[in-house]
Amino acid sequence: MGLIGAAIAVAGAAIGASLGNGKVISKTIESVARQPELQSRLQMMMFIGVGLIEAVPIMAVVIAFILVFK
Amino acid sequence: MGLIGAAIAVAGAAIGASLGNGKVISKTIESVARQPELQSRLQMMMFIGVGLIEAVPIMAVVIAFILVFK
Amino acid sequence: MGLIGAAIAVAGAAIGASLGNGKVISKTIESVARQPELQSRLQMMMFIGVGLIEAVPIMAVVIAFILVFK
Amino acid sequence: MGLIGAAIAVAGAAIGASLGNGKVISKTIESVARQPELQSRLQMMMFIGVGLIEAVPIMAVVIAFILVFK
Amino acid sequence: MGLIGAAIAVAGAAIGASLGNGKVISKTIESVARQPELQSRLQMMMFIGVGLIEAVPIMAVVIAFILVFK
Amino acid sequence: MGLIGAAIAVAGAAIGASLGNGKVISKTIESVARQPELQSRLQMMMFIGVGLIEAVPIMAVVIAFILVFK
Amino acid sequence: MGLIGAAIAVAGAAIGASLGNGKVISKTIESVARQPELQSRLQMMMFIGVGLIEAVPIMAVVIAFILVFK
Amino acid sequence: MGLIGAAIAVAGAAIGASLGNGKVISKTIESVARQPELQSRLQMMMFIGVGLIEAVPIMAVVIAFILVFK
Amino acid sequence: MGLIGAAIAVAGAAIGASLGNGKVISKTIESVARQPELQSRLQMMMFIGVGLIEAVPIMAVVIAFILVFK
Amino acid sequence: MGLIGAAIAVAGAAIGASLGNGKVISKTIESVARQPELQSRLQMMMFIGVGLIEAVPIMAVVIAFILVFK
Amino acid sequence: MGLIGAAIAVAGAAIGASLGNGKVISKTIESVARQPELQSRLQMMMFIGVGLIEAVPIMAVVIAFILVFK
Amino acid sequence: MGLIGAAIAVAGAAIGASLGNGKVISKTIESVARQPELQSRLQMMMFIGVGLIEAVPIMAVVIAFILVFK
Amino acid sequence: MGLIGAAIAVAGAAIGASLGNGKVISKTIESVARQPELQSRLQMMMFIGVGLIEAVPIMAVVIAFILVFK
Amino acid sequence: MGLIGAAIAVAGAAIGASLGNGKVISKTIESVARQPELQSRLQMMMFIGVGLIEAVPIMAVVIAFILVFK
Repeated sequence: MGLIGAAIAVAGAAIGASLGNGKVISKTIESVARQPELQSRLQMMMFIGVGLIEAVPIMAVVIAFILVFK
Repeated sequence: MGLIGAAIAVAGAAIGASLGNGKVISKTIESVARQPELQSRLQMMMFIGVGLIEAVPIMAVVIAFILVFK
Repeated sequence: MGLIGAAIAVAGAAIGASLGNGKVISKTIESVARQPELQSRLQMMMFIGVGLIEAVPIMAVVIAFILVFK
Repeated sequence: MGLIGAAIAVAGAAIGASLGNGKVISKTIESVARQPELQSRLQMMMFIGVGLIEAVPIMAVVIAFILVFK
Repeated sequence: MGLIGAAIAVAGAAIGASLGNGKVISKTIESVARQPELQSRLQMMMFIGVGLIEAVPIMAVVIAFILVFK
Repeated sequence: MGLIGAAIAVAGAAIGASLGNGKVISKTIESVARQPELQSRLQMMMFIGVGLIEAVPIMAVVIAFILVFK
Repeated sequence: MGLIGAAIAVAGAAIGASLGNGKVISKTIESVARQPELQSRLQMMMFIGVGLIEAVPIMAVVIAFILVFK
Repeated sequence: MGLIGAAIAVAGAAIGASLGNGKVISKTIESVARQPELQSRLQMMMFIGVGLIEAVPIMAVVIAFILVFK
Repeated sequence: MGLIGAAIAVAGAAIGASLGNGKVISKTIESVARQPELQSRLQMMMFIGVGLIEAVPIMAVVIAFILVFK
Repeated sequence: MGLIGAAIAVAGAAIGASLGNGKVISKTIESVARQPELQSRLQMMMFIGVGLIEAVPIMAVVIAFILVFK
Repeated sequence: MGLIGAAIAVAGAAIGASLGNGKVISKTIESVARQPELQSRLQMMMFIGVGLIEAVPIMAVVIAFILVFK
Repeated sequence: MGLIGAAIAVAGAAIGASLGNGKVISKTIESVARQPELQSRLQMMMFIGVGLIEAVPIMAVVIAFILVFK
Repeated sequence: MGLIGAAIAVAGAAIGASLGNGKVISKTIESVARQPELQSRLQMMMFIGVGLIEAVPIMAVVIAFILVFK
Repeated sequence: MGLIGAAIAVAGAAIGASLGNGKVISKTIESVARQPELQSRLQMMMFIGVGLIEAVPIMAVVIAFILVFK
């Protein structure tokens, strides 16, 4: 039962994190293409944003590992 | 039964938090790219917003941990 | 049975609250970026709005805790 | 059986109320940002609207509590 | 069986009423922001509209209460 | 079996009627905001329209009551 | 088995008829708001249209009543 | 088994026919509102179109009646 | 088993044919409203198109009848 | 088992073919309404296109007949 | 078991091939209507494209026949 | 069990490959219609693109054949 | 059990990779059609992009082969 | 049980990573086509972005391998 649970957890984490990150990163690339002089600032915000987005999915991955090895 | 429950809870938390955060952060990056002089203000609002959004998903993660170790 | 129920409840609460909050906060950031002189007013409305939105999800979290420890 | 039912009820209430409130509040913030002189009027309508929207979800929460403690 | 039924009924009622009310109220706020001199008229129509929309969901809540206490 | 059936019937009726009514009423409010001199005419059409829309959902509610008390 | 069937039939009928009618009526109100001199003609077409749309859902309601009382 | 089948058949027929008819009729009303001198022609095409659309759903209703009384 | 099958077949046929026909007929009415002098030509194409679209759904209805009376 | 299979096959064939044909035919009618002098050419392409689209659904219908009479 | 499998395979093949072909053919007709002098070239590309699209669905049909007669 | 698996695999492969190819080919036809002098180049890219897209679905077809004949 | 698993894995891989590749390749063809002088650069980026996208689906195919032959 | 789990995990990872990467890469190609002088910068951001997006899906693949060989 825990094995299916681990699969559901990482699948949800992968879909959620990929879509959220994809949105942020593609928007950053678009903004840099318009205003190249802001690249360093926007890139730093992108790293912060990706870190904030991946907080909850990483916890889901941790729970999945716990479910697998329990 | 609790193991599947933990997986559903973190999967929902990861999808919800990622999409909500992705929307806020990408909008912030877009706004900073337009008006770089407002970066500090908007960034502070972004951190507040991410904190507010992640309140409920973090509770879901907590409940998932409780379900796993119960 | 109550453990699956707690998971469904917090998952729904997390998805709903994240999307609702994400909409309100991203709209606020967009509005502040356009009219920075209204920041304090809009930010106060944002806090009120987030509080109103999270009323029902918090109740869902409470019910989930009751379901877990019952 | 009643425990799963309580979870479905609060999950539906949380998703519905969050999306409905999010729409009303974000529209109010957008309108205030355009016409700041109407803030008090629009804010009052927002409170009325949130109250009207949360009428049915609150009943769903009440039914969920009844289902839990029955 | 009736307990799950009550949950489905109030969940449907909460989602339907919240989305329908949210649409009407946000449209009213938008219209008042454009033409503040029509506020009383539009607000009265909003109350009538919310009343008409909530007619069927309230019946769903009533049926849910009947299902719970039967 | 009839209790679940009653719940499905009123849930469908609530969702359908709320979305249909919400569309008609919000369109009426928008039209009145543009041309306030047509309010009485449009409002009468709105009442007729809401009555026509709720014809089938009311039958669904009636069938739900029959299913509950049978 | 027939009771669940009746519920599915009226639920489908309610959702279908509400969305179809809502589209026709809101389009009629919008058209009358633009050209008030055509109100009688458009209103007559609206009644014909609502009648045509509700033909099949009414049959679904009839079948639902047959399924209930069989 | 045939009773559930009849319900699925009429539900599909009601949803399909309502959405298809709603599209045709609302488009006709919109076109008449733009060019009132073409009303008779467009109305005749609308009746033909509604007849063509309802051909298959009526067969579904017939099959549903056969399934009920078999 | 064949009775449920007949219901699924006619439901799919009704939804598919209604949406496909609705698209073609509403487009034809829109085109006639713009260029009334092409009515006969476009109407003939509409009849051909409706005939081509209903070819496969009619076969589904035929199979449904075979499944019912087998 | 083969009877349900036949129903799924023709339902998928009917939905797919109707939507695909509806798109091609409505686009052809729109194009003829704009450039009536190209009617014969476009109509010939429409027949070819409908033939190509219905190739796979016809095979699905053939398989459905085989499943019914096997 | 193989009979249901054959139905799922041809249903997926029919839906996929119809939507893909419908997109390519309707785009070709639109392009020919704009630039009739390119008809032969675009038509040849259309045939190539339809052939490429139907490669995988035809394999699905082949597998379905194998599943039926195995 | 392997027969259902083969059906799911080819159905997914057919839907995915058809939609992906349809998008690429229709975009190529649109581009050629705008700039006929680039036909050879774009057509070559189209063939490369279709080959790249069909890599994974072909593997799915291979796995389906293995599942059928195992 | 592993055979169904292999089918789910390759089906997901085929759908995901086809849609992702289709988006990248169609965007590249569109860009080349606008600026033919950038063809070599954009084509190289397209190959890199397709390679990056197919990394995870190829792993899914590998896992599917392992599941089949285990 | 672990084999189905591995399939769900890699399927979710493949779909999520493909869509997220496809969005970022197609946006990068579009931006390079507009401003070729920024290619090196945008391409570097693209590689960083793809790496960040694939972090969670790679973990899902790792968990899938663990589930397979456990």
